Amino acid sequence: MQRHFHEELETLKQTLLAMGGLVEDQIRRVLRALVERDGDLAQEVIDRDREVNSYDVEVDEKCVELLALHQPTAGDLRFITTAMKIVTDLERIGDQAVNIGQRVLELNREPQLKPYIDLPRMAEQAQRMVKESLDAFVARDTELARQVCGEDDAVDGLKEQIFRELLTFMMEDPKTIPRAIRLILISRFLERVADHATNIAEMVIYMVESRMVRHTLA
Amino acid sequence: MQRHFHEELETLKQTLLAMGGLVEDQIRRVLRALVERDGDLAQEVIDRDREVNSYDVEVDEKCVELLALHQPTAGDLRFITTAMKIVTDLERIGDQAVNIGQRVLELNREPQLKPYIDLPRMAEQAQRMVKESLDAFVARDTELARQVCGEDDAVDGLKEQIFRELLTFMMEDPKTIPRAIRLILISRFLERVADHATNIAEMVIYMVESRMVRHTLA
Repeated sequence: MQRHFHEELETLKQTLLAMGGLVEDQIRRVLRALVERDGDLAQEVIDRDREVNSYDVEVDEKCVELLALHQPTAGDLRFITTAMKIVTDLERIGDQAVNIGQRVLELNREPQLKPYIDLPRMAEQAQRMVKESLDAFVARDTELARQVCGEDDAVDGLKEQIFRELLTFMMEDPKTIPRAIRLILISRFLERVADHATNIAEMVIYMVESRMVRHTLA
Repeated sequence: MQRHFHEELETLKQTLLAMGGLVEDQIRRVLRALVERDGDLAQEVIDRDREVNSYDVEVDEKCVELLALHQPTAGDLRFITTAMKIVTDLERIGDQAVNIGQRVLELNREPQLKPYIDLPRMAEQAQRMVKESLDAFVARDTELARQVCGEDDAVDGLKEQIFRELLTFMMEDPKTIPRAIRLILISRFLERVADHATNIAEMVIYMVESRMVRHTLA
């Protein structure tokens, strides 16, 4: 039974990592759709959110099943309850890809305002944070988790820079306002991706350190 | 033991409702701070987020303890795992109040752009959704939960209306752009409050109906 339980935990980790890979890919593709003005690709990303959502249900069911059948305690219990929370963050990262996809479709109806440099950079940074936060979770690695929390400042910095640049466009030529606002919103959606990754990293720290406290007290 | 368990579940519900009351109050106060241009009140809301965060830890600990000590199954198990997810949404609703508070402090440095009518209306609607979604949770009331999901459209409608109105301001007078963008962001933060309430309502439906499915299969 115990061996079986650890195999199931391992499967849970792999499923979470696969879901993480999918949402990272969603972010990567939707940014390509933005840069290449590819409406079909943006629509594909929007449609593929169904896959993200079905992972959400799958992980949730698996966690409840593990809790019900194996009644884990201490570290394993907290690992599973944390997984249930993380899956919600991953699902919402997927929602941000959809939000961005919708803005891309709108932006494609007008000429491009400017070449995009900082937005793809911001997206890469946010994607990396998602990947690292999940790696930190499966390895229960608080050092990596703390690194993710630190990386959020760089994303905020890029967001501010994008905002200031677009503000200049808007002040100089009010015709650019609707497009500039859509780009500002895209930067906010990417900020939210990074926030979700930071939330995951914080939960990892909490999971590991409160387990340690519990162990010390036991 | 069983009696004790149900008393603890009851306490958990009361704590979640109290936390819900606190975050609703945070939204209410920060909107008052906006309308009355009261920077002290905005700062109070920002500072009081610590209270919201300590509820987060309290509920989380309580849920893990209930799972570890009582090893609940079926409906009670899913109720507790759902509570652990809901508390995260409540905590993030609290974060939106902080985000709004920061924009209020920035807005107070310049003259008021326009009287605020739709933003307080949007906030009231979002607050009501938060309250109803929690009521739906503690009563396991899927009808009320479905009603909350339906109310999200009204919030989105107000958001679009606010956006169009502020767009007009910006196009006519570029000097208004920085203030208008802050107000647009506030409307997006309120939209996120409503989204969190919708998420809670969806989790309630999932909790109740998958429990029913389980019961049918058992």
